[in-house]
This record gives sequence, structure tokens and C-alpha cells, in this order.
Amino acid sequence: MKVAGRAMRTIWLAEDAKTVEIIDQTRLPHELVVARLACLDDAARAIREMQVRGAPLIGATAAYGMALAVAADPCDQAIEEAAATLAATRPTAVNLAWALAEMRRTLAGLPTERRFAAALARAGAIAEEDVAINRAIGEHGFGLIEAAVRAKRGSGPVQILTHCNAGWLATVDWGTALAPIYRAHDAGIALHVWVDETRPRNQGASLTAWELGQHGVPHTIIADNAGGHLMRQGEVDLCIVGTDRTTSQGDVANKIGTYLKALAAHDNGVPFYVALPSPTIDWAIADGAAIPIERRDPREVTHIAGWTEEGGRVEVRLAPAGSPAANFAFDVTPARLVTRLITERGVCPASREGLLGLFPERRERGAA
Amino acid sequence: MKVAGRAMRTIWLAEDAKTVEIIDQTRLPHELVVARLACLDDAARAIREMQVRGAPLIGATAAYGMALAVAADPCDQAIEEAAATLAATRPTAVNLAWALAEMRRTLAGLPTERRFAAALARAGAIAEEDVAINRAIGEHGFGLIEAAVRAKRGSGPVQILTHCNAGWLATVDWGTALAPIYRAHDAGIALHVWVDETRPRNQGASLTAWELGQHGVPHTIIADNAGGHLMRQGEVDLCIVGTDRTTSQGDVANKIGTYLKALAAHDNGVPFYVALPSPTIDWAIADGAAIPIERRDPREVTHIAGWTEEGGRVEVRLAPAGSPAANFAFDVTPARLVTRLITERGVCPASREGLLGLFPERRERGAA
Repeated sequence: MKVAGRAMRTIWLAEDAKTVEIIDQTRLPHELVVARLACLDDAARAIREMQVRGAPLIGATAAYGMALAVAADPCDQAIEEAAATLAATRPTAVNLAWALAEMRRTLAGLPTERRFAAALARAGAIAEEDVAINRAIGEHGFGLIEAAVRAKRGSGPVQILTHCNAGWLATVDWGTALAPIYRAHDAGIALHVWVDETRPRNQGASLTAWELGQHGVPHTIIADNAGGHLMRQGEVDLCIVGTDRTTSQGDVANKIGTYLKALAAHDNGVPFYVALPSPTIDWAIADGAAIPIERRDPREVTHIAGWTEEGGRVEVRLAPAGSPAANFAFDVTPARLVTRLITERGVCPASREGLLGLFPERRERGAA
Repeated sequence: MKVAGRAMRTIWLAEDAKTVEIIDQTRLPHELVVARLACLDDAARAIREMQVRGAPLIGATAAYGMALAVAADPCDQAIEEAAATLAATRPTAVNLAWALAEMRRTLAGLPTERRFAAALARAGAIAEEDVAINRAIGEHGFGLIEAAVRAKRGSGPVQILTHCNAGWLATVDWGTALAPIYRAHDAGIALHVWVDETRPRNQGASLTAWELGQHGVPHTIIADNAGGHLMRQGEVDLCIVGTDRTTSQGDVANKIGTYLKALAAHDNGVPFYVALPSPTIDWAIADGAAIPIERRDPREVTHIAGWTEEGGRVEVRLAPAGSPAANFAFDVTPARLVTRLITERGVCPASREGLLGLFPERRERGAA
């Protein structure tokens, strides 16, 4: 997508064809800093310190990290060690483990002198596959936005609410929840996005607002508390969010607070769509209640970092020193509150039958 | 309620029996500062700059402000001017207008030499009436908490979720939503309060957490996004919130985000109680949709003030410079999502018949 009028991705092979460049997302939204990854350790640090984040982008970064490791030492032992180093950066990321397995499979059995080129090629392909998946999600979701346009009969721009950041910054390009929005905006459809700030880590107010703004998509940041009021006022035509994990019956685990917005959408007859790349479907779990919910550092609730007028980054405390806090990272939205799932293969009901209709090969392979 | 083991109120007549003291709430939760109001302008500034906030406390402060004005000049014209000055500080506060009218009625017709004593007495009575109302709300709500204790059959402390600050800091003492909690805690009932941080002004994370902590009530601050997840997990036994305005059919306008928590409570079979002093019932409006919703400065969303480790107060920007924000102060929770209303006269269903059962005099006087 565009940054200041120029097309960018979150990760790319540098002009030297030997190193990799990324957008350092820890500096957003206040400055656009491109960081160079020249070796395995650079890639591992970028993932660990969340210069890159979002499951698909973590996978692509890990793949490139393997290529950088091979450039330094293409022997089998070095490859195993590199995979172990990268696997340890974000242990729960499914795409990370998948990308590392892909890279090891690609390199196994190749003569060492061909390994770097093969690794670069496979890492590049993993990145392109992510872009293709997201572009397809955008295309399928576009149809739902067009339907909303028709339903509005010309009464102003389509009003879309999103939560957290499931945009191109969480992927290589396009994003998941935001892909249909970019597709519709680029097609000339008048739309406006309500951006939940997404406490406690504020990915909406910082990342989603930044990427929509850079691409020229009209948007407004709101407190997470405001979405229900907007829906009651008729100010939201549809919601689109991403998901970290979708169960085989269509329950979705996503950023904490998603469930509350789904309840409000349901109460007000507003369609609630969840966009997902199929690798995030967990066919082994049916009931979302079985998904373990990560608890993070309470300091993310009691403290927040922002920028002063002078441009300095400062962390401040928001709560009394003696008050404990709890920080739940995700919640589960039951399938009954999800109007449709949007995947790279098309749009389907949030149900076992809906998902199996798009992924019939799972009927044979088994799903919970 | 208690601060560091000592009983305090938010406003009181100073030992000199001529001036008034308040807790300066703009300094909470980081320091407890008592400010002296020695004249009309001090009182007006305290209201305008939100050193005092919450409808009942604003009313009491305005009443004392009238007394301070009378001390300086007891003539009719000075009284009218003082009332006009105070009325302009927070134009939408219903209790403010009511308190000013009470004071003018009290002073009218009295000889000037008796006016100061009469004004002090009436201001003190207004403060005591607020305490009595809130104590009664606490007593009636206590019964609902006792019922929750019985339903739990000894399985841990009663888990209560609250939103915003409807505690003693918003009143003269006890608070509204928190009054039943203090009553139950003081009676030795084991309970724990989930405190919504309440973006964008964070009254929960700052004021509610502070006052519960000072009184010794176990509590945990959570992001506003977390309440739905906690209810799905069975971690909330009941919710209690306050309200700025209740309609004659039991719809409640309260801090933005209240509606989302009411939806989650309804979806999970968790009782959702709203505590209110009867002066905040708007008998002239039936449908909550008719309540105008204040939009505040977007800067409250894009910026936040907190304290550095060194103890300095700093405001930081959270959002991209180019991204607009919208700031809705309240939302309306429809009566169908409210389990019961808690008033100083007792507990009733959130309905026209429920309210008229407690306030039968309104049948004759008319209600929308």
C-alpha cells in the first residue's frame, strides 16, 4: 500500500540482493524508519522486539532470516541453529513455525553452494504467497462492501468499523481486514473507517490510523468504548476485523474487545465480518472456549508510551501505584455473532459447513 | 470513605467555619492535595477546572460557593451575580442549577445579617442530603450483593465489574455505584472489583482505582475491552454502574462504553445494575434516544496525561498527527439490558411501572 504516495511493503529484498529491509514498526506512527536486516541476529531481534509483528509478516521475516543465516554459513548445523534461534523469538506464532519448516524443507538435500539462492527464492515466494492471499481476501470482501454501497442508495460514504490492526503492516502487503477496504477505496468507492484505538497496546490509534492515513483512506480514531454508541446511531454500515485463530465451527479469537463489538453489531443489525487467511484456521478445535487466552504484562495497562510535543518518546503511568491490573490479550467471538468469514477462497457462513464448503479437502483430512 | 485509614469526604467546612476545603481531584491518583475555597471565585474555578466533578459534588460545591459569596457581600444583587457566575461553570449539570435555586430560595427575604449563617446551614444540609441518599443506595444495593454471595455458595469472593467513576469522589461521600460495594466490604463480605479504565478520560484507572485502594477494597484495573471476556469466563458475578440521566422508562445515559458492558452482561446472564439518586431521573423523557450526547474535545482521545517515574505530569500524543479523532462522552443503555435500578427508595425494574412503584407521586404529577 502507499506511504506518502509511494507503494511500499513491510519487508523486501534490498537493492544489494543480499540483505533485507523492513519498516521499523516500533517507530510508527511518529516516524517512518527503514531498518536493514543484514544477518540472522538482525532478523531475530526484529521479530522479538516487534519491529515486525502480525503472524504473516513474522513468517516472512523468519524465512528471510533463514536466508541471511545461510549466507553466513550454509552448512546443516548452522541451518538447524538458525531455525531454533528464530523459533524462540515468538514461540506461539503459528506462521513462524510453518515458515521455518518450509525453509528447512527447501534447503534439505541441496548442495551448500546453491542454498543461499534457493533460500532467497523461497523466502521471496513466501512473501508473495502472503500478498496473493491478502489480495484475494480483498477481492472477496470487496463484494460485501459493494453490497453495503447498494443498500445505502447513495446516502453518504460506507461507514466501516475495525478493531486493532489487521492491515498491511501486519502482513507483507494489503492486510486481512483492511484488504477489502483498500480494494474498495482504490476502486473509487466513498468510504470512511472508524478506527478503535484498541487498548491497551493501541494498535488501532497508532498503526491502523497511520496506514489508512498514508494511503489516503478517510478515517477517525475512536475510543474502544464508542463503537456501540455509533452503531445505535446508525453510523456504522459494517464491521470488519481480523483474527488470530478461527476454529472449525467458525468461532474467532481476536484482539481483546472484538467480542464486545460483535455483540453491538448483532444488537443493531450491523453485519460483522471476519477476514482471515486460511492458515489461521485451527481445524483441530471446534469450540472457541478451548483456545487459551494469553495474559500479558499488566504494565501495558497501567503505563503508556507516547510522544511529547518536542518529539520525544515518553512512558507515563496512568494508574495509582498500588492498584494491580490485568491484561488479557484476546477474546473469543462465538460464530453466532459473525455474519460471514472472508477467506482467500471466498466468503462463507461462520460454521463448520460454511468452512468445509470452501475447504472441501478438510472433509477427508478431518476437522474437529 | 477512608483515605489512608482516615475517613474523608470530598468537600467540608474548614475548621475556621468560614471557608471550605475540597480534595483537588485533578491531582489524583498521584497525590492527595486539599484545596481551600475562600471566595466565590475559588468555588467557580474548582468546578470549572474539575477539581471537583460528579453531579452531586458539583451541586454541593456550588451551594458552598453561594455561601462564600454571601460572606463577602450579602446584598441581593451580589447573590444574583454569584448564582450567574456559578451557573456558567458547567452549564449542563442539572444538580448545579438545582442547588443554586435552593440557595436563592433560602436567602430570599432573609435580612442580610442572617444570610451567611443561613447559607452555610443550607449548603451543609445539601451535602448531608447527598450523603443520606447515597447511604440509602448503598443499603439497597447491599441486598443485591448479599444475594450474589448466596448464589456463589462460598466459591470465592463476589466479582463485581464497574465502569467509570460513580464513587464517593463523584459525590460528597459513599458514591452511587460504589456505595453498595463499600457497604458490603465494610460488612465483611469478600469481594473484588474489576475496574474498567474508562477511556478516554480514564476515570476508572485513576479515580475509581484510587478510592477503592484507599478504602482497602480489593480491585484490578482492566482495559475497557476486557469485560466481555471476563464475563464469558464466569469471572463477573454482577455489574454496577452509575448514570448521568435515567429516563422515565428506565433507559440510562452513562459514560461511553456502558452499553457494551450491558450487552455482554445480558449475553452471559450476568445481572447489570444501575445505581442512581432520584434527582437524576428525567421524568420528561421516555426514550433514551432523545437524550443528546455530548461530543468532547478529540484531543482527549489522541493525547493522554500521565506521570513519569520522576513524578512529573506529562501529556503525550498517542495517534498520528494527521489522523482525526471523535470523542463521544456518553451512550444510552436501553432498559431491556438493565436488570434493576437501585435508588435511595429501593430497587426496582428498569421500566415505567418499576420507577412509578418507587415514586408514586409522579403518577399524579405526570411523566413522559
